[in-house]
Amino acid sequence: MNKIKNIAIQGIKGSFHHSVAENYFGNSEVFEECMTFDILVDCLLNGKSDVAVMALENSIAGSIIPNYALIDVNDLRIVGEYYLDIQHHLMALPNQSIEDIKEVHSHPMALLQCKEFFKSYPEIKLVEARDTADVAKEISDRQLFGIAAIASETASNLYALNILQRSIQTITHNETRFVIVKRDDEILENDINKASLKFELDHKRGSLAVILNVLSDCKLNLTKIQSLPKINTPWKYAFFIDVTFDAYSDFDKAKSIVKIMAENFKILGEYKNAKS
Amino acid sequence: MNKIKNIAIQGIKGSFHHSVAENYFGNSEVFEECMTFDILVDCLLNGKSDVAVMALENSIAGSIIPNYALIDVNDLRIVGEYYLDIQHHLMALPNQSIEDIKEVHSHPMALLQCKEFFKSYPEIKLVEARDTADVAKEISDRQLFGIAAIASETASNLYALNILQRSIQTITHNETRFVIVKRDDEILENDINKASLKFELDHKRGSLAVILNVLSDCKLNLTKIQSLPKINTPWKYAFFIDVTFDAYSDFDKAKSIVKIMAENFKILGEYKNAKS
Repeated sequence: MNKIKNIAIQGIKGSFHHSVAENYFGNSEVFEECMTFDILVDCLLNGKSDVAVMALENSIAGSIIPNYALIDVNDLRIVGEYYLDIQHHLMALPNQSIEDIKEVHSHPMALLQCKEFFKSYPEIKLVEARDTADVAKEISDRQLFGIAAIASETASNLYALNILQRSIQTITHNETRFVIVKRDDEILENDINKASLKFELDHKRGSLAVILNVLSDCKLNLTKIQSLPKINTPWKYAFFIDVTFDAYSDFDKAKSIVKIMAENFKILGEYKNAKS
Repeated sequence: MNKIKNIAIQGIKGSFHHSVAENYFGNSEVFEECMTFDILVDCLLNGKSDVAVMALENSIAGSIIPNYALIDVNDLRIVGEYYLDIQHHLMALPNQSIEDIKEVHSHPMALLQCKEFFKSYPEIKLVEARDTADVAKEISDRQLFGIAAIASETASNLYALNILQRSIQTITHNETRFVIVKRDDEILENDINKASLKFELDHKRGSLAVILNVLSDCKLNLTKIQSLPKINTPWKYAFFIDVTFDAYSDFDKAKSIVKIMAENFKILGEYKNAKS
């Protein structure tokens, strides 16, 4: 990883993407702050960034399908993954209590994950914003009293906000899976024991079962599966599958078989399992 | 369906949920306008509504996992489905052109589905709102010039807005699957040939392949599959699966086998396939 110069993150410093980038690469790197996932991908494609960090799924909202599409359509390659246990804290300018808060601004996903907490505060208006950390920064920059952010501990420190209530998300163990992506022309890392695949099948009885039997026969473990009807093509389905394996040769064997049996077989990435 | 008295929809009249309710039940019914899916479920549980319409998946964003969770946790039952080809139109008060528009307000999903269109209009600010039709109503009620909505043709008629550009969504054929849900104490409809199932499996090689083999042997067709890591339980996965079948007896047989082989087997609904 010693060649990394610039890492694209979604959101600004203090965002959860920033935390993942720091944990994965160390905090001496240069970050490109991107307000949308489209801009993040552009940073990779135009060479401004060498690598990007992208949230891909969590246990509450499931897969972030548009990000799968961005990886697929732009032929990016997943080269690593990282699981972050996301703790959402409610924060505002100092010397205020929750009773002083009229509005809470945050990313729709953060609002969704904390909605149970706010049922006890029906008078607080929830407003959707682009990025969790960006709201924290704005409250600080513009000295906005009466408005709170839902963001990370790092954001509260960076932007000098006071945490009114810690860990307000409904599910206490709130793990989100991030992937590290690159352009598809880089050398692979070592220690590969996980892969993300995409393929298509006709709507024919048992077609998926046959593929899963092959993966199982080749000693591959399935850690994720998701079907998606193929846009503009009735009765055709795309499948996104993650597998883990002990020996790369087993995966190699499975690849050569599935490539023949399924249509439009594509490897989205081969990388090291973060949960082994 | 002659006992239906009150239908809960997400959003207000003119929303896509409203269109689905009208197409499925006829337009002589009484609608309960709910601003969130939580409120919609409450309407069912407290008996205010007999039935509710709920978006469940689309080809761009995939499954709406929080809605699956609402059905599962509250023991609701899926009793029908409807596919709506969603066409997003850009609309504003009359006598304006696109060049007069400073901001477009709409639901995050609608903004996502139209983002390619707005790349040609970088000066237009995109603002997330709760409901597509609600923005149209507000523009009309408050006579907001310079602001446009992304909503349905019905909304433009209901709220007297002028369509500036038709069908601005990126994917021209933009189909969303809605389900009709009830409390779990109602009599089932006839003509059942589709079902939504949920079960859990340990992370053991081939465990899913075995279940899919059973479904295939019982002549069931898979139309959807989605794994979800079980919250707070590492190495355990929940699966949401939709199947279609010709004979109910085949489904009955599969049910009795899967119930033994998988954990926490649950039928989320048995209903008539809208695509047969």
